[in-house]
Amino acid sequence: MPSPELLARLGELSDLRHAGQLLAWDQMVMMPPAGGPARGQALGAIQSLAHDRLVAPELGALLDDERADPQLVRVVRRDHELASRVPSELAAEMTRAGSDGFAVWLQAREAGDFAVFEPALRRNIELARRYAECFPELEHPYDALLERFEPGTTTAQVTALFARLREGLVPLLGEIAGQPARPALAGDFPVARQREIGMQIARAMGFDDSGWRLDDAVHPFASSPALGDVRVTSRFDDHSLTGLFALMHEVGHGLYEHGVDPALARTTLDTGVSLGVHESQSRLWENLVGRSEPFWSFWLPRLRDCMPQALGDVELDDFLRAINVVRPTLIRVEADEMTYSLHVILRFELELALIEGTLDPADLPQAWATKTRELLGIEVPDDLHGVLQDIHWSEGIIGYFPTYTIGNVLAAQLWRAARLDMPGLDDDLRAGEYGPLRDWLVDKVHRHGRRLTPAELIEQAVGGPLDPAPMLEHLSSKYRTLYGL
Amino acid sequence: MPSPELLARLGELSDLRHAGQLLAWDQMVMMPPAGGPARGQALGAIQSLAHDRLVAPELGALLDDERADPQLVRVVRRDHELASRVPSELAAEMTRAGSDGFAVWLQAREAGDFAVFEPALRRNIELARRYAECFPELEHPYDALLERFEPGTTTAQVTALFARLREGLVPLLGEIAGQPARPALAGDFPVARQREIGMQIARAMGFDDSGWRLDDAVHPFASSPALGDVRVTSRFDDHSLTGLFALMHEVGHGLYEHGVDPALARTTLDTGVSLGVHESQSRLWENLVGRSEPFWSFWLPRLRDCMPQALGDVELDDFLRAINVVRPTLIRVEADEMTYSLHVILRFELELALIEGTLDPADLPQAWATKTRELLGIEVPDDLHGVLQDIHWSEGIIGYFPTYTIGNVLAAQLWRAARLDMPGLDDDLRAGEYGPLRDWLVDKVHRHGRRLTPAELIEQAVGGPLDPAPMLEHLSSKYRTLYGL
Repeated sequence: MPSPELLARLGELSDLRHAGQLLAWDQMVMMPPAGGPARGQALGAIQSLAHDRLVAPELGALLDDERADPQLVRVVRRDHELASRVPSELAAEMTRAGSDGFAVWLQAREAGDFAVFEPALRRNIELARRYAECFPELEHPYDALLERFEPGTTTAQVTALFARLREGLVPLLGEIAGQPARPALAGDFPVARQREIGMQIARAMGFDDSGWRLDDAVHPFASSPALGDVRVTSRFDDHSLTGLFALMHEVGHGLYEHGVDPALARTTLDTGVSLGVHESQSRLWENLVGRSEPFWSFWLPRLRDCMPQALGDVELDDFLRAINVVRPTLIRVEADEMTYSLHVILRFELELALIEGTLDPADLPQAWATKTRELLGIEVPDDLHGVLQDIHWSEGIIGYFPTYTIGNVLAAQLWRAARLDMPGLDDDLRAGEYGPLRDWLVDKVHRHGRRLTPAELIEQAVGGPLDPAPMLEHLSSKYRTLYGL
Repeated sequence: MPSPELLARLGELSDLRHAGQLLAWDQMVMMPPAGGPARGQALGAIQSLAHDRLVAPELGALLDDERADPQLVRVVRRDHELASRVPSELAAEMTRAGSDGFAVWLQAREAGDFAVFEPALRRNIELARRYAECFPELEHPYDALLERFEPGTTTAQVTALFARLREGLVPLLGEIAGQPARPALAGDFPVARQREIGMQIARAMGFDDSGWRLDDAVHPFASSPALGDVRVTSRFDDHSLTGLFALMHEVGHGLYEHGVDPALARTTLDTGVSLGVHESQSRLWENLVGRSEPFWSFWLPRLRDCMPQALGDVELDDFLRAINVVRPTLIRVEADEMTYSLHVILRFELELALIEGTLDPADLPQAWATKTRELLGIEVPDDLHGVLQDIHWSEGIIGYFPTYTIGNVLAAQLWRAARLDMPGLDDDLRAGEYGPLRDWLVDKVHRHGRRLTPAELIEQAVGGPLDPAPMLEHLSSKYRTLYGL
């Protein structure tokens, strides 16, 4: 057992994270609008208290003396050093610039004009470069930005991974884009009915009323203020079933937090290890389970019963084709399973160039249009459908986008490994039974929390490092079948 | 302007209060049950951080040097000294004992047996006495307990106030209890309809979607994590209209928080000054407005339209009699406007005797039964309907009960003053118009936050100290009319 002093400090850090997560969840889901300014201040105060505690020299000294739990010490030392390296003035400036940048981004969107946003973006890029300078030992400045979200992953690794994806995806997309357009599902999908069947699916996945909540949010997300308290959100609308997939996605995130070993509670190890590994869980449930034939062979009859008017005469094959349409489009968050990664590659390449200084922020709309043409084969009509679409850069969040695709890549690796370990997996899905898959994920991924590094976790779970081959094979085989290529 | 250093410290204290309030609100309204243990720890951590900051000698030094705002300095110094006087071991022991006591109280309620609870109560009483010993300069140990909830009010004042109330109320109740029983409202009052008309009433009172929320809670309460963010709760059920009155009560609390001068934001003065003054606001809206003839002359037709089956043929006079039934009962939270104060007097007299040591906790059920006979003229059949009914003592909350009746007393004083200042007040109520009354309350009470002491505020608002006469006169005249005495 680590020393009581160390555990007390980590407990306090966990409690502050708990408070911060809850304040943020409430801000998105519950808070009346007039509460906004005070909430921003309270969140800032909680973050600043947590930061002070994380950089405390007393914590460093306790870590130096601790012999009991090397894995714990490794993670906490990493957090301590990451926070200690960055001067508090710079951290405060980044927070302010992120908050200002978000407000300016909203104005720029209102005006539909990137020029309004450019000075704020330039400031965020400049601050991100200054942040990176705090870690001069790293090979590439972007490594420091990645490290915040995907510990241990380097720019060189992402570059190599994305190059292979790009090689595989662009030609495949070209083939599909040449096919006649597929009809999407049309009709009226009453929100109340979607919520009802969505809750049935969520409960089958592991949602449990004693520890979970589902609420509405404009931008769906999952949050877990503490072990045992899991909150997912979705957004349903009457004209599509996207809310169901968003729900499966968020329940996937929730299951990760829910599956962490209770022994890790309040040690700061009691949460997901990286954004990429987190995204692997959401994407696995959303896409590899939730858009599959075995899954819908169980659920489609139930969905039909629930919405007989819109879906009464829809056959499984047609339904699967409709929920798996591939089409190059302009907006990342609306992209399908295949083109999604191309949107991410585009953003990674651009933010890398911005950080390296080979792209000036003023030239970004032009560069965005060029890359959209190369990767997706379509034209960007305006800034709103291009460079102004994502919130991330406005808040100074740079180095985050790659984690989305790391998640997709890892999801396909985990899926392959799960199928090898569980030959009956398809039969389970056909029976609406997810217990064995969930248990497998708990064992391979969830229970470890932050105890293993992402690289260790991936190695143990799939027997090797991140590898794009399973995802490319999955997409190629799935879409060649669906599109009869 | 006070020094930036002082304002920064007060801002941080406000932010921690904000976080604590939100965590507590969420715990009651949103949190899935499994989140309970971690929430308890997080709340404890936030409280402890706030306590550390409040007792910091640096804060004391800043207060010594501050010349700009004597009212602010006075309040903060009082908070600082109150917290500094109590050794942190005692404060921690009280928190633990309160938490343990609550758990034991639940067990005792399960068993229906006070003996199960007695040791925990004894410990809480003992700790309350040790707390009081930290303030040896006070005339009476109970003064120290009162001070936490009703700053500046003494045991002698409460004793004198309650003696006059007791003298006035007990004979009046005797007269009413001699009358034939009045029929209560019976029927089906659909919750959805109650919520609908409840929201109409709340909006007319000042509830505003941009800054307010209404949710369900088992024990209705109001909370305001920050200026501009007001959260009220109620509990509706199909068999009575009590949820509507609970809603008006909580909106009354909410209006107080909502009406605090925005200039006080994040100074620690930006909330209600005492529990008694707070309760005066909730009771004024619930009883003096919400159970009055002018109020229902506007709303009853609307309520009838909303629930034609249950209320279609109810006349205003009968409705008013039904919502103003007086009857001695055993449970405080179900008591009517008149007997409520007798329940409070009973608890005050008992907790005073416990603190003074003239009553041993083991003898409490007997003493409870005797006082219930004296004050209400009824017999206590068992501990659940007697000494085990309230949560307060289980958590070590002693000195709190009197604030309920202080609130009722002050509400009647404010009501009398408001009627003198606004001769058209009844006409406003008949028109469903509450703006002038709300503005009056903002001016006399709300805007001051904690800037004035309760005594100063009362003096300025009603031209004298706390005085039971207006309440006794109001009750006597109201019930003599309603019961034709």
